[in-house]
Order: sequence, then structure tokens, then C-alpha cells
Amino acid sequence: MTYRAPVRDLAFTLQAVAGIDRVAATGAFPDYDADLLGAVLEAAAQFSEGVLAPLNRIGDLKGSTWADGAVSAAPGFADAYRQFAEGGWTGLSAPAHAGGQQLPKALELAAYETVHAANMAFGLCPMLSLAAIEALEAHGTPSQKDIYLSKLVSGEWTGAMVLTEPGAGSDLGALTATATPNGDGTWALHGQKIFITWGDHDATDNIVHMVLARLPDAPAGPKGISLFLASKFLLNEDGSLGARNGFRAVGVEHKLGIHASPTCVMSYEGATAELVGQPNQGLAHMFVMMNAARLAVGVEGVGIAERAYQHALAYARDRRQGRSAWTGEANAPIVDHPDVRRMLAVMKAKIAAARAICLSTGVAADLAKHAATDEDRRRWKGREDLFTPIAKAWSTDIGCEVASMGVQIHGGMGFIEETGAAQYYRDARIAPIYEGTNGIQAMDLVGRKLSQDGGQSVRDLIADMKATLAVLPRLYSGRPVEALAEGVAAVEEATAWLLERKGAADGAADVLAAADGYLKLVGDVTGGWMLALGAIHARDQLDGGQGDPAWLEGKITLYEVYAANVLDGAAGRMAAIRQGGALLERMSADVLAG
Amino acid sequence: MTYRAPVRDLAFTLQAVAGIDRVAATGAFPDYDADLLGAVLEAAAQFSEGVLAPLNRIGDLKGSTWADGAVSAAPGFADAYRQFAEGGWTGLSAPAHAGGQQLPKALELAAYETVHAANMAFGLCPMLSLAAIEALEAHGTPSQKDIYLSKLVSGEWTGAMVLTEPGAGSDLGALTATATPNGDGTWALHGQKIFITWGDHDATDNIVHMVLARLPDAPAGPKGISLFLASKFLLNEDGSLGARNGFRAVGVEHKLGIHASPTCVMSYEGATAELVGQPNQGLAHMFVMMNAARLAVGVEGVGIAERAYQHALAYARDRRQGRSAWTGEANAPIVDHPDVRRMLAVMKAKIAAARAICLSTGVAADLAKHAATDEDRRRWKGREDLFTPIAKAWSTDIGCEVASMGVQIHGGMGFIEETGAAQYYRDARIAPIYEGTNGIQAMDLVGRKLSQDGGQSVRDLIADMKATLAVLPRLYSGRPVEALAEGVAAVEEATAWLLERKGAADGAADVLAAADGYLKLVGDVTGGWMLALGAIHARDQLDGGQGDPAWLEGKITLYEVYAANVLDGAAGRMAAIRQGGALLERMSADVLAG
Repeated sequence: MTYRAPVRDLAFTLQAVAGIDRVAATGAFPDYDADLLGAVLEAAAQFSEGVLAPLNRIGDLKGSTWADGAVSAAPGFADAYRQFAEGGWTGLSAPAHAGGQQLPKALELAAYETVHAANMAFGLCPMLSLAAIEALEAHGTPSQKDIYLSKLVSGEWTGAMVLTEPGAGSDLGALTATATPNGDGTWALHGQKIFITWGDHDATDNIVHMVLARLPDAPAGPKGISLFLASKFLLNEDGSLGARNGFRAVGVEHKLGIHASPTCVMSYEGATAELVGQPNQGLAHMFVMMNAARLAVGVEGVGIAERAYQHALAYARDRRQGRSAWTGEANAPIVDHPDVRRMLAVMKAKIAAARAICLSTGVAADLAKHAATDEDRRRWKGREDLFTPIAKAWSTDIGCEVASMGVQIHGGMGFIEETGAAQYYRDARIAPIYEGTNGIQAMDLVGRKLSQDGGQSVRDLIADMKATLAVLPRLYSGRPVEALAEGVAAVEEATAWLLERKGAADGAADVLAAADGYLKLVGDVTGGWMLALGAIHARDQLDGGQGDPAWLEGKITLYEVYAANVLDGAAGRMAAIRQGGALLERMSADVLAG
Repeated sequence: MTYRAPVRDLAFTLQAVAGIDRVAATGAFPDYDADLLGAVLEAAAQFSEGVLAPLNRIGDLKGSTWADGAVSAAPGFADAYRQFAEGGWTGLSAPAHAGGQQLPKALELAAYETVHAANMAFGLCPMLSLAAIEALEAHGTPSQKDIYLSKLVSGEWTGAMVLTEPGAGSDLGALTATATPNGDGTWALHGQKIFITWGDHDATDNIVHMVLARLPDAPAGPKGISLFLASKFLLNEDGSLGARNGFRAVGVEHKLGIHASPTCVMSYEGATAELVGQPNQGLAHMFVMMNAARLAVGVEGVGIAERAYQHALAYARDRRQGRSAWTGEANAPIVDHPDVRRMLAVMKAKIAAARAICLSTGVAADLAKHAATDEDRRRWKGREDLFTPIAKAWSTDIGCEVASMGVQIHGGMGFIEETGAAQYYRDARIAPIYEGTNGIQAMDLVGRKLSQDGGQSVRDLIADMKATLAVLPRLYSGRPVEALAEGVAAVEEATAWLLERKGAADGAADVLAAADGYLKLVGDVTGGWMLALGAIHARDQLDGGQGDPAWLEGKITLYEVYAANVLDGAAGRMAAIRQGGALLERMSADVLAG
């Protein structure tokens, strides 16, 4: 089974749903136009299909390997990475002054969906470089930008995010790595870090580690953490690589999936490092990287789901069993059995919704930086902030769900590793965990994101959804319309309830108990809204005699599938949202163990 | 992490929810009483915890191995099997005349839940013997019972179900293996079979294969299939093992999970076999085995979920991060964070519901055979038939879901194989597939099961649920009561709609499009009903001053958790049930690929 990048759907989603034309209209991306969008997606498709997809299985089987403090990438990965960097793929959205192509973030995300779909373990490597680029661009000194930023943008070096410690995962405030002054302006890092993705490898000559650690006089907790940059090799005066720096990989984890992505245990033993940004502001600085990475992980969820979907669809068209309920054909392809068709249709609808949410978040991020007015930038920043945890959590849950349905469609063959469906099921499982578990995302949504503007971003979203709802009866009648109306009403009701509980002295546990249900509700309804936007656009194109009629009709049907199978159940989450902290408190650890 | 069998909960579910006392009252199980129930569960717990659970990880790591046409069980498994057989565990529910203990099926299922939880790959071996025992008991000749049944009951030999071929999976009617007469009353089997669980191994001296094949003059399709018995070793006149029979394992599959369960490709090359039952009735005869096995697979789903739950709960009580929302404690165990508590509470509630459904199906199966009157037996047979696909599909979906939540609760550690959570996630994934995919179960429910009695079994179920609903306001008010009422109303409405569509000339695709949603709806609501039954019983015990108050209060809280997080969303499945075959038909294979 070969992967085919969904170029047409990526372009449609960027243009008709996410509204990338608004980004172009800011003038911040002078090279960007619709032709370039098409060219970039086509080129990404070619690379992902031709170079990355064929390495996916060997990467799973062989994995990356560790020996004597150094990691070797899986067979073929180093060469593929060099081609990737040479193709300019690490600099798509980076600023021109650093050698980047200065294209919209949203377009980069669409291109990277094909990378993650083709080879999720590979995609993590440049994804982390992009996060490091964002952090250095925002907080690096001119010298750091001069030296490190351009090498990351060119892809000659890769970046790594170095946060987690055995005792400090979701709670980064607990971390204990230290940085002591060397007296020459540099710092000496000490400590052990775990779960460092692509923390070491042999695909590039050098690796730039962005490390969180504590200054000697730092306050305890999250306000005493600083961000450092440590280069695998120290640099000579002329910029050439010098001595090996004092950190190394002391092992790699044996994981359920993404075997070709080395997950390193790193030991820092007096590693020379530079401070990035302000002392004790490391966590805030790192959030720049983390938010970018969270959205990128959402796109990973979409990519792995797309891959699993294509694999399952190909099997369902090929495999023959039983009689078709529609045609009566004997020994029919199983795609002609309604229950298999239903699974595939739901998979496709959920993927399209998640893709739309992620790319819309990318557009919001572009507009948050480049929209014309302060007011517009503030509004788009609110949308970006609101959508980021949803893009991450909702899309990665769908990655797992779709990969699991992909296994199911294969029947017994799905459980056999050679078939390939099982790899997606294993690989997909990491995405709801890293870059902040999906539970952390939900807490971020109901905590910071809902209150930072008193709920204004959600009200803006609800207003946008209601505007679409007013148009929907032009396309549908009955349940498809009612389902979105009820969904939007549920978001309104749930938001009001949450804001009330957030204001109450005894409301904290209620809000946290509601977090997961609220994120899922807003995700389900937002996804439905976006598929409705796509359907309306398709209707307009059809009415205007443009485009491929069958494909556009498919967009109109897809919303109906989503409405019946996802959206109509969304309001049913209200009870979980309102369950209350007291109920869970009664369900104590002793009761759980009883 | 050690597994602890949930003996108290198994006993409570059998007695307070499934109503095993009704089984005892039939008089068909003279040795059974409540003391024996406790003794059997305690002994099963001891064996599963002490012998089977410690082999689970090594079984995953080493797996079973194949060489030169023969399979070796994973390290320790053959010895564990011999202890298992010596303990009498393969004959719990078998008839006394065959050397069994003639205990209720429901009790056997409860005991086996601990086996599957401790070591799912191991449990498959005796599970298939039990299925073979049922088939031989129902359809074997006196001589076959004499020779083979007693050896299966004693556990000296094991049984295997030999159905699937590369071109005949869900559609067994397509199978092509042949049986030609040898002239001496025996038959010669030819053909290749795949996915034969424990089809070969070295844990016993002999293996009894129950094989589907076609007679030379058999009609095409499902009505031309016969059931045969082929013994790995031919038997001498005196019953001792003679020459090796003409079939062997030509390979084992490399699978996502249950590595210690050999999944064999079997080749029959003139293997000597006996006909079991009537010619061309093999599929009907095999359904005796398959229905028993389907319920057993449901119990596997419960077992693997319980194991994953315990593992995650232990981690959540041990792992410390952040501040508790309830106590304000810093560096609190993560079980004191509402979102983690919610996950564990939902896991526990779903496991309890699935356990209740499976054990109630077991009770129904016992009563279908042994209730006093024809009318009662007919009614319980209807309940057994109705519940079997739900027990299989709903419980195994929960097995996967709970195992996935178990990974999630571990955070990054969950993705590391050494932690153990990932194995449950991998192992659990097979259960929705084998013994008829969950899609096949759903079709069985809306097809055969719903119409075989004109919907009477569902109406009986609805009447029972309404009787419980009338009592519920004694324990709860508001949403917990309304949720069950709405759920029952949804089941009523969906059933009426389905029966109408089944009667319509153009309804076939509508019914099949509804199948999955209907099974999930009935499962969700039935699970809620059963937790309500448990809560009512707990209330009665509390009011009577019996039992452990904290534990019983936990049962009352558990229903509330289920009502808020599962039951309240059940009615939201109505749109998926009503989506219609025409919508899916429009979502054609070309649209899916577009």
C-alpha cells in the first residue's frame, strides 16, 4: 500500500475552510499566492510519497539504535533527512532573514501533514527543529540567531526540546537540572533528562538542545526555570564545529511505536550552555516552542489517521466477502457492506474535521502575528489560543480512533504486523501523550484559555458558528441542521456553566472534572461547523459550475455523515461536563481500589 | 504491578446483578452453593495471580515459537497449563458424566475472567477447549464423547477451532477445504487454514481439531459445510496415541499482541478425521462452539480491561505531580487530580457494566438449559441470544478503550514497553476482531437476534429495565434517574424503528447501517441498568446493616459516574442508528477515495 498525499483536500481545507486568503491579504508573505500553495503541496506530496513513505516499515522494524552514548538513525533515515533539508523543507515558514521562505504557518502545517502521514517517526525530527526555530526567533540574542537559527532553518543542524525529568513531566515546575555560571558568560548544565525526542542521532553533524534548568539562586517551582541552548559540539571562533560538549545519550527507550524516532535519556555533565531570553523566564519562553509543537502534534494525529484510512480503504476495496446490501453482488468488496462503509465514512469525516481545525489554527496563528490591526491580531490570537489545545487533543484522539478502526476493517489481517495497519495503531498512541497529555490540554482550555479574555474567544467562535448555521438550510433540512444548532447551543450552555463555576469559590474541581468533556464538545461542534463551511463552499462552486461535481457533492455528503455519527451525539456530553468535582471526590482512591 | 483478582466484585455481580441464585434453584447443579461460589473464585484468584500473571510479560517478550512444523509454547506456559489442568479448571462447567464438575457456566466465566486478566494469551488455550467440549457434548457420537470429550474435560488434551481460510473469514460459506471418504468411515481432510489459535503447541500430548470442510457432493455456500474432528495423533485400539496425523502447523503469525498465543497456519494433507454431527450441518454445529466462544471473548475484554485498570490505578496512586484540586496538597498523587480520577472512575464503571452483561449472559445460558418450564427456557434462551453479541462486542470495545486509557494515565511511561501498560493495549486489540468481528456481532443482533422472536426478547429486556427504573428514585434524583429513563426510551424507539425497517422491502441497508449504533445503544443502556441493579442491592444491604459500608456506597456512586459519563450520551446515538443506507450509498467508494 502506497500513501497518496491528499493534495486536493489540503488545498480545499486551507482555502475554503481555514481561509488562508486572509493570510495572503496581510501582505506579510510576499511570495505566497494560490499557485505557490499548489506547488508546495505537490512537492511535499512527491517527497513524502516517494522518499519518506517507503522508509516507514523498515523504520518500525529496525528502529534507531543506541551504542556507546550515541544514536544511529534507522536505515535510510539519515539520507532521507539530508534530502529533506536540501529540499528546503525545514525553512518553509521561517523568516527570510534567517534563510527561510517566509510562507504561512498554515501552509507549512499542511505540507507537514504529508510528512507525518508518510513517516511519523521521521517527521518528529524536523518538527522539533521548527519549535526551536520559533523559540530562538522570539527570544534569541542576535548572536544566537546568527549562529544557530540559520543552521536550524537550513536543516544543517536539528533542534531538540529538553524538558522532562523523571520527577518532572506534566509538572515542569518540579524539575531539578541546574545551570551554574562558568564565569565567561556561559553556563554549565548538570542533570538527567528523559523522553528527549531525536535528542541524539547521526543524520546531521550537530544538534541544538533547548534545555530547561535552574540557576543557583532561582526560586523554587515554575518561576525559577531558565532556558538554555547547548550545542552538541562546541563552536570554534570561525563557526566550525569544535570539541564535543558535555552531554550525551545514555540510552534510548523501547517503545510501543515510532521506533525510528530515538527517545533519548540524556545526561548533562557540565555541558556548556548559553542562556536564552531572561533568567527565570524559561517556562514562558519554552511555551512558545510548546504551543507550536502542540499544534504540530495535532497535525500528526491527522496525518497518521489519513495514512490508516487510506490503508483500510484500499483493503476494503480489494477484499471480497459476502453479498452487497446495495447491489446484491455476491463475493462483493467489503466496502460495499454498510457497516464497513460506515466506518470508512466516519473515519473520512473525522479526519476532514480534524484537518480543518488544525489548519484553521495555523491560519489563526499567522493572523495573530500579521493581521492589520491590533484588534484583529488580538482576536486571532484568541482564536489561536482557544484552538491550540483542541487541535492537539481532539485530533490526536482521532488519530488513535481512526487507526483502531483501520485495524478493525482489516479483520484478522489487521492484527498481523506484516499488514501494516497495526503500526499506525501503535504509532498513533503517542500523540495524545506528548507535548502535554490530552488531559493537560483540556485543563489548559478550561483554565487559561477560557478565562484569559473572560470567554470572549469562545463567544466569537459561537457567533461565527451561528452565522454558518443561518446559511445551512440552503443545503440541508431536518437533522443535519438541527444537529449543528443543538451542538452550538450546547457549547453556549457549557461555556456559561464553566464560566460561572470558574467564578465560584468552590468551583475549581468542578471545572477540572468538566475539562475533558468540554474539550470534546467544542471539538465535535467546531469540527461539524468546519465541515459545514466546506459543504457550503462546495455548494457555491457547484452552483457556479466550477470544480469536480462528484468530489464537491462528496463534501456535502460528508457533513451529513458527520452530523449523524458525531455531531448529533455532542450535546450528550453535557452530563459529563456537569458531573461535578464532588462526585469524583466521592469516587475516592479507596473506592476505586475496592 | 501484581494482578489482584476482583473476587468480591465477581461474587457481587454474579449474585446481586446476574442473579445466579436462579440457576442454583433449578436443581441442575447439585454441588453448587454460595460457599462453593466463593471457594471457586478464591482458588481461581490464587492460580491466576500466583501462576499465570507472572508469565504474562515473558510470554509477550518471548512468544511462542515455530520450527519445523511444530510450535513450542512460550517459556513456562506448558508447565502452567499442566498445573491448570491438574487443578480441574478445564472441567468446571462440563457435565459430571464426562468428568466435569457440572457447575454453572456463569461461575466458570467469572473464574475465567481472572485467567484472561492474568494472562490473555494463556487463557485462549483452555477457552477453545471449552468451546470444543460444548460442540462435542451437543453433537458428538457416544464414541467421540467417550474418547475425546473426557480428555478435553480433564485437560489432558486441548481443543482447537479450525474455521478460517484465506478466502473465508467473516463469510465462512466461501470455504474450500475438502473431506473425502476413506472407505472405512473416516474422512481425509485437505486444505489450508489460517488464524488457528493454539492450533499446535507442546503443552499437551495431543490436540483435538474441530475442522470445517466440504464433502465431495456438498452444495456450494454455507449449506455445504460439515464439521470434522481430527486428532493430532491417531489413536490405537487401546486408546493410546499412535501415528502422527496428516496435518501440521506450517507457520505462526507475527502479531500485534497475545504473542504467547500461537496463531497457526495449518495445512491438512489427507488428515484422518471423523464426521461430527450431520453432513452439511457443520456451520450450525459450529455455531454452538462459536456462541460459547463469543461470550468467552467478551469476558476476555472484561479481564484485559480489569488488568489495565489495576495497573493504571496503582500508577496513579504512586506517581506524584502538581497540586490536588481537592486537598491543595502539593506534589499530590495524580489520582487526586480530577481528570485522572475521572478516567479511572469511568474505567471502573465500564468494566463493572461489561462484567455484569457477560455474567448475566452466562446466567441466561444456564437458565436456557435448565429453567423449570419450556416457557422459562425459551425466555432465557432469548435473553442469551440477545445478549451474546452485546457481551462480545460491547465488552471487547471496552477492553480496548480501557487499555488505551490505562496507557494515557501513565503519560510518557505508558508508551514505554517495560511499563507493561502497552502490552494490554496491544493484547486487547484482537478481541473486537476474532470470533466474528464486532461488526458481525452488530449484524447478528439487528439481523437474526432481533427478528427470531419478532422483538420479544428486547421487549422483555425493556420491561425488566422499566421495573428497575421505577425503583431508582429511592436512590437518586434528577439526571441519574432521567438518564436511564431516556436511555430505555431510546432503546424502545430504536427497536421500533428497526423492526419497521426490517419489515420494509427497501429496509435492508438501513438496518445494516444502524447495526453498530444499535448495539452500542443497547449495550450502554443495559450496562447502566445493571449498575443500577447493583446500586439498589447495595442500598438494600446498607439499609439492612450488612456488608462493608464504604464498598457498598462505592457501588451507589459508580452508577452515578456511569450515568453522567456514558448513559447520558446514549440517546445521542439515535441519529447514527437512523442515518440510513442511502446516505452511506451516496458515500460511495469513489467518494471515499476522492
